[in-house]
Amino acid sequence: MLHLNLFIFGCGHHRAAWRHPRSSAERLGDIAYYEALARTAERGKLDAVFFADGQSAENLSDGPRWFLEPLTAMSAMSRATERIGLISTVSSTFYTPFHAARMMASLDHISGGRMGWNVVTSMFDSEARNHGYEVMPDHAWRYARAEEFVDAVLALWDSWRDDALLHDRAGSFVRPGSVAPIHHQGRHFLVDGPLTVPRPPQGHPVMFQAGASEQGRDLAARRAEAIYAVAYDLPSAQAYYRDIKRRVREAGRSDPVPIMPGLVVYVAATEAQARAKQRELDELLPAPDALRQLSMYIDQDCTGWALDAPVPALPPLEAFKGPKGRYATVLRIVDTEQPTLRQLLGRLAAGGGHCTMVGTPVQIADEMERWFRNEGADGFNLMPPSLPDGIEDFVEQVVPELQRRGLFRKEYTASTLRGHLGLARPAH
Amino acid sequence: MLHLNLFIFGCGHHRAAWRHPRSSAERLGDIAYYEALARTAERGKLDAVFFADGQSAENLSDGPRWFLEPLTAMSAMSRATERIGLISTVSSTFYTPFHAARMMASLDHISGGRMGWNVVTSMFDSEARNHGYEVMPDHAWRYARAEEFVDAVLALWDSWRDDALLHDRAGSFVRPGSVAPIHHQGRHFLVDGPLTVPRPPQGHPVMFQAGASEQGRDLAARRAEAIYAVAYDLPSAQAYYRDIKRRVREAGRSDPVPIMPGLVVYVAATEAQARAKQRELDELLPAPDALRQLSMYIDQDCTGWALDAPVPALPPLEAFKGPKGRYATVLRIVDTEQPTLRQLLGRLAAGGGHCTMVGTPVQIADEMERWFRNEGADGFNLMPPSLPDGIEDFVEQVVPELQRRGLFRKEYTASTLRGHLGLARPAH
Repeated sequence: MLHLNLFIFGCGHHRAAWRHPRSSAERLGDIAYYEALARTAERGKLDAVFFADGQSAENLSDGPRWFLEPLTAMSAMSRATERIGLISTVSSTFYTPFHAARMMASLDHISGGRMGWNVVTSMFDSEARNHGYEVMPDHAWRYARAEEFVDAVLALWDSWRDDALLHDRAGSFVRPGSVAPIHHQGRHFLVDGPLTVPRPPQGHPVMFQAGASEQGRDLAARRAEAIYAVAYDLPSAQAYYRDIKRRVREAGRSDPVPIMPGLVVYVAATEAQARAKQRELDELLPAPDALRQLSMYIDQDCTGWALDAPVPALPPLEAFKGPKGRYATVLRIVDTEQPTLRQLLGRLAAGGGHCTMVGTPVQIADEMERWFRNEGADGFNLMPPSLPDGIEDFVEQVVPELQRRGLFRKEYTASTLRGHLGLARPAH
Repeated sequence: MLHLNLFIFGCGHHRAAWRHPRSSAERLGDIAYYEALARTAERGKLDAVFFADGQSAENLSDGPRWFLEPLTAMSAMSRATERIGLISTVSSTFYTPFHAARMMASLDHISGGRMGWNVVTSMFDSEARNHGYEVMPDHAWRYARAEEFVDAVLALWDSWRDDALLHDRAGSFVRPGSVAPIHHQGRHFLVDGPLTVPRPPQGHPVMFQAGASEQGRDLAARRAEAIYAVAYDLPSAQAYYRDIKRRVREAGRSDPVPIMPGLVVYVAATEAQARAKQRELDELLPAPDALRQLSMYIDQDCTGWALDAPVPALPPLEAFKGPKGRYATVLRIVDTEQPTLRQLLGRLAAGGGHCTMVGTPVQIADEMERWFRNEGADGFNLMPPSLPDGIEDFVEQVVPELQRRGLFRKEYTASTLRGHLGLARPAH
């Protein structure tokens, strides 16, 4: 059975989505907008909704960034829904374990066992400089801290036994000996515990991770209960999938650890209509900005190139002198899709490195099934190019097709996120 | 016009309230319990509900402590209500300004301008040791940090101009130049900004403070927009009230800065019934524990004293060798109320140092009016000995009497907490 999350981001994952005349640009500070998105996802029986998070506001002229704080937003969203999971990104570099453990435990109680957390180590100096660091600490330090952070958070959740609450009106409120300090003292944190919140309904809110680097993959394989991934096409998805599953086995784990690559879908009744949707968003991109950005990525001036002509041949990756990551993405799109310049800009503006599927519900379902049956994915983190219509389309058109094929649940069979994902509740 | 807040705490502010057969002990992890409390308070047209906060879990055998985390709980509670304010305690010693500013800004958007924050510096080593400190930093350091914390939080809220959101679909998402870094660099914090959340609907969520020490009073007078106080009786309330109002004037401020002492109310149709309610809770206190605690407070063994006899004469404060704060409270209760030992234990168990009023709705309203008209209080922070019944009783019995006297609103006339409190919206 596939797992599907809705990755909520502003007006959608296409950078120009907010420019659409009917976009939700004016509603981004309105919690009812996010509640409605969660309800739509729940109508589609999705496993969860997911919020990324950033700790700095940049490039605001170009579009909305990080309006509501995810943990506070998810509390309200949990009360507007009944079954769907709620996953928030939590930065181990900026939070302390006690705050993070407490907020997530509280949310797991509020939501009745539907919380997940996506542990990230954050990336940008601009974020670090909002939290007391002069510059972002280096990658190795951040991962060492993340590992200790996870240890402390899990220990805090286990600082109350499941049966700790006794409510013995003539005696003790808690069962004697059932709530204990953790006395964590490590390189990064001193945390005595116990937590101020009883053990979460799920035992531990479900831990997601998106490991791409060697250290990230290692942490994900050893600790994550589910994994978000970036995969441009099935071969790269398979390479990542097999590598992680091997590492999970090598870590001696038998739990499923579902892997969910990000997925951008344009769906409509005909392929031509789906492509028209994509083109409509692509045409909203202010070309001068996008061209300046692309010029930077490919290290040559493309501001004079024709927008609706094919992208000219580009030098091979080996010959490229600048940062290779973004350039590799550009090359891959150009080589596989032979796009016009405008199409390339649009692809880069909507989850560039992530898989993009454009077509009819049957075509989309075919492709998702192909990934699912061939060790490319256990599910997908849906990144609708525009919201709310992108998830409404998916729920109304693609979900029924997946259900018809027996690839996706028709009704929820569990009431916790852990249950939806087929993960066991961790023993105390 | 009086201001009234409901101070929500577990099963009520009487330490034995959870032991009552019909107590809410089993519901403390259930957000619906807190939503219902907020709705009851809103039915009574109260200005706000308020959460204290502690960052450690201790004495759990004796009763519930800090179950849900306040900020996450308040998000849900804001969606269950429409007009009432929501005030959460935020520790400047344990939070960073960026997290605090972001969460509260987010909650102000989610609630449509109903958030308040009660800045505290925290007290206990057990809390410090959950957040990386070996021991609690000293008082002066904590207050210096608090002051800088407030500066940084306010600056972050002002890092977006009110008219920053432009939504110009053909141009810029924000008005150029309307979102700017704050570049805060002080002794305690480095925060570049801008915030990731647009300016809160209230400009700034309302800042409460409860200053008792010299430094606390000073901070409150210079910075707080409303003040929580501890006052045992009208003379001590007046002394505090006049001192703070003088300091506010001396700080050159013209805003009202309402002062709200904590208030424990037992109300019923007859005074005898009200006293019976109080006795019922007092009798739930496990006497051995309470006597051991009292023995510590008064530094003599009282475990053999008769529970239903008057408390024997105690040495004067000057002669007392131990910590004077708690002992002074004990002396004051003994001297003014001539309680039995059981009554004394009960008073200490239900907001000991705070004013307690026991009687009919008319008697309670008389007494509240007396404080209000004689520079004792601009309102009260209601601390019901048991919940939910304590606030239901107050709303059904005392509020109508206050309304009849023109001392309290019959309908909300504003939609923000700032509006309820008669506070101007801070200019950018």
